[in-house]
Amino acid sequence: MKIAVILSGCGVYDGSEIHEATCTLLNIDKLGAEYQCFAPDISQSTVVNHCSKQSVDTDSRNVLEESARIARGKIKNLSDFNTIDFDAVIFPGGSGAVMNLCNYGTAGNQCQINDEVARTIIDCFESRMPIGAICIAPVLLAQVLGKNGIAITIGNNPKVAAAIEQVGSVHKNCAADDIIVDEKNLIVTTPGYMLAKSIKEVDTGIAKLVTAIIQLGSKHCLD
Amino acid sequence: MKIAVILSGCGVYDGSEIHEATCTLLNIDKLGAEYQCFAPDISQSTVVNHCSKQSVDTDSRNVLEESARIARGKIKNLSDFNTIDFDAVIFPGGSGAVMNLCNYGTAGNQCQINDEVARTIIDCFESRMPIGAICIAPVLLAQVLGKNGIAITIGNNPKVAAAIEQVGSVHKNCAADDIIVDEKNLIVTTPGYMLAKSIKEVDTGIAKLVTAIIQLGSKHCLD
Repeated sequence: MKIAVILSGCGVYDGSEIHEATCTLLNIDKLGAEYQCFAPDISQSTVVNHCSKQSVDTDSRNVLEESARIARGKIKNLSDFNTIDFDAVIFPGGSGAVMNLCNYGTAGNQCQINDEVARTIIDCFESRMPIGAICIAPVLLAQVLGKNGIAITIGNNPKVAAAIEQVGSVHKNCAADDIIVDEKNLIVTTPGYMLAKSIKEVDTGIAKLVTAIIQLGSKHCLD
Repeated sequence: MKIAVILSGCGVYDGSEIHEATCTLLNIDKLGAEYQCFAPDISQSTVVNHCSKQSVDTDSRNVLEESARIARGKIKNLSDFNTIDFDAVIFPGGSGAVMNLCNYGTAGNQCQINDEVARTIIDCFESRMPIGAICIAPVLLAQVLGKNGIAITIGNNPKVAAAIEQVGSVHKNCAADDIIVDEKNLIVTTPGYMLAKSIKEVDTGIAKLVTAIIQLGSKHCLD
């Protein structure tokens, strides 16, 4: 089984959350599947100093190049993603998911989704490929697929949960180390650091998510 | 048990190897210990585009600020490290270990060690605190502690192994997912991505390393 992992930079405050992304790759490998990382070749919306948590106006970074740090250089441009090459797709969390892959972080439900990200989600959904999303990344799925009534979780944040429901998705509260599985729509989500207080909790939730994604993908392969 | 993790940036080609650093934090947490990340507040020796693997002369980054990405902002300046606050210390690998914490990457055995890094290693060794090092990071221990005849591994790279022996350390070949334990000197090393072909192998080696470090530290606490 081959799983595409869509990254959004490198660092919780302006890119992919590093622990979530790494635990995703680790659990895919531990469960005997293969992964290929992708990211869009676009500028980050901002660069954040991770000590001061302040934006650095004088700096600019590229999402694909920064994501390559997590992928150890083995990464492809998201424009090259094709559903025919993969059995599932996973979106780790981090602010990059809502600041680079879309601008929900500033625009809420009036956000714009990056064209390649939207295409990726729609192509996977329409080809009945399982989709995983971690932490805040389920917001992307709500924005693109909301009208299909998908069931997802971002933990229990009332504001984000309400926004998810407003675009037609169903939000389900979920513990930090657990998952919500929408079997009908082949979507699996886990709260990650939206709720987790430790990297162990994050890893436990992601291990469950990857296991469920592989199970759904196996059923899909047999169809 | 509290373990200090010393980072050197964020990315295999110019900082800490992200998978090795993350798996270190994960295994510390899974084994019930606590971690605190540290890094020196210095400029990186270079910034490498992780897609092209080329240095970017026009860019400059700070080791502490980039390391903070792996630590989710919860990081301290290495100048604030004190052995009295910790039971063990671990150095993940990545080029930053030999390009930022010292300049072995360009100067070989004529390299200079960052003063705070050298002080940290000497203070831990002299206070009989267990020291772990992953991938290329054992070179730091060889440079600082070589004359003490410490036994370490960087896998089986003949050139680096010879350099380690030249400064008075003992190099032992080791499989990617295994460890070398120097019980006398309380030093544990594992090859990480010097040899590993997958993140699972890296995680297995680091899980053994953290387990051994905690066992050595527990004995140390009982002395």
